[in-house]
Amino acid sequence: MTTSNPKTIAILGGTGKEGKGLAYRWALAGYTIIIGSRTTDKAISAAEEVIGLVGKKVHVKGVENTIAAREAEIVVLTVPYSFHREMLEFIRPEVQGKLVIDVTVPIVPPKVTKVQMPPEGSAAQQAQSILGENVKVVAAFQNISYENLLSGETVDCDVLVTGTDKEARTLVLDLVKDTGLFGLDAGPIENSVVVEGMTSILIGINKQFGVHASGIRITGISR
Amino acid sequence: MTTSNPKTIAILGGTGKEGKGLAYRWALAGYTIIIGSRTTDKAISAAEEVIGLVGKKVHVKGVENTIAAREAEIVVLTVPYSFHREMLEFIRPEVQGKLVIDVTVPIVPPKVTKVQMPPEGSAAQQAQSILGENVKVVAAFQNISYENLLSGETVDCDVLVTGTDKEARTLVLDLVKDTGLFGLDAGPIENSVVVEGMTSILIGINKQFGVHASGIRITGISR
Repeated sequence: MTTSNPKTIAILGGTGKEGKGLAYRWALAGYTIIIGSRTTDKAISAAEEVIGLVGKKVHVKGVENTIAAREAEIVVLTVPYSFHREMLEFIRPEVQGKLVIDVTVPIVPPKVTKVQMPPEGSAAQQAQSILGENVKVVAAFQNISYENLLSGETVDCDVLVTGTDKEARTLVLDLVKDTGLFGLDAGPIENSVVVEGMTSILIGINKQFGVHASGIRITGISR
Repeated sequence: MTTSNPKTIAILGGTGKEGKGLAYRWALAGYTIIIGSRTTDKAISAAEEVIGLVGKKVHVKGVENTIAAREAEIVVLTVPYSFHREMLEFIRPEVQGKLVIDVTVPIVPPKVTKVQMPPEGSAAQQAQSILGENVKVVAAFQNISYENLLSGETVDCDVLVTGTDKEARTLVLDLVKDTGLFGLDAGPIENSVVVEGMTSILIGINKQFGVHASGIRITGISR
């Protein structure tokens, strides 16, 4: 763990492959993880799956989304885009004063390879707008192949981190490092459109090349 | 040259490092290049510079922007963003029915690391809107370090190609290949915001890492 204190992380919509992938990596790194779901049973089942995958003693439990958001210091949103707005309004009271990491990509079927942003400019800006200025929204992990994240394989994709608050971006960069990935500060929340939209481009590239895990890597820097 | 026929390419605003870099690479590949500038003298001087750099017999000449646009089959726009709209309105009659490659990045000082798009959604969409539907606008080369392009060094940055017309994107992918770079079809013109905005993120990364040529590379595909 690279952050100064052990942290509790809630992962809402954590029963999907994105949520379980992040839960797996952070549990391995020593964080306490609360997986949230609409039904407690599903959350518990996902938590048990993650514990089984890690194969050593870790702190992972499953509860209903609101309870997860209430109990954690850091709240990660990994819900499908169609539930994004609804979930934000639902958890708004629970996340005031907290850090919210938004992983959401605005994919709008049927044209999933075409960039289609909400009126706010991006999913992250939508989150910031709904949650209000007392919440520090940071966007990250949108371009990652979650199968590789969960399996523990190397993920050959950098994580671009955007958000209004520089200190919050730095904290999330530590969390990225703890998943085993390489993160970069990609600037203010207005830049989220680039990272979210890149996922649509990568879906198109996946189709063209017959692969399922294309990603991006920043070149010309020393790591 | 990978395209089926020898093509004449006009590079408007071609006296800057972007324009000269592209002129150098395409002249080397055997294309006929017309460098355009607001003043004929500057255009001629840039053409002579490119010929000198190539060091073998190539077809490069310099003329005023309108004449360049009129004479060429493919028109490349490498003007600063502050001249983008004005230049598009100026050349509109000359480029009807042609392919226009827009290299423009909407960088708005002083916040050059913050994504700031025009009302149309991106510079490429602005170009398409101004030039009209008889012009095939394709956006490309926005993330490249032009110093490396001109010096003939390896450019470790992929080129994402966007535009409404798939055939036009394919043609531009051939032109990218002829510069020695690796290009990818990044989908419709609405996706241009991602590629243009990425330049603001890369400028921020350049500052953080103390480098001047960070770029992007698509991972997880076979080349």
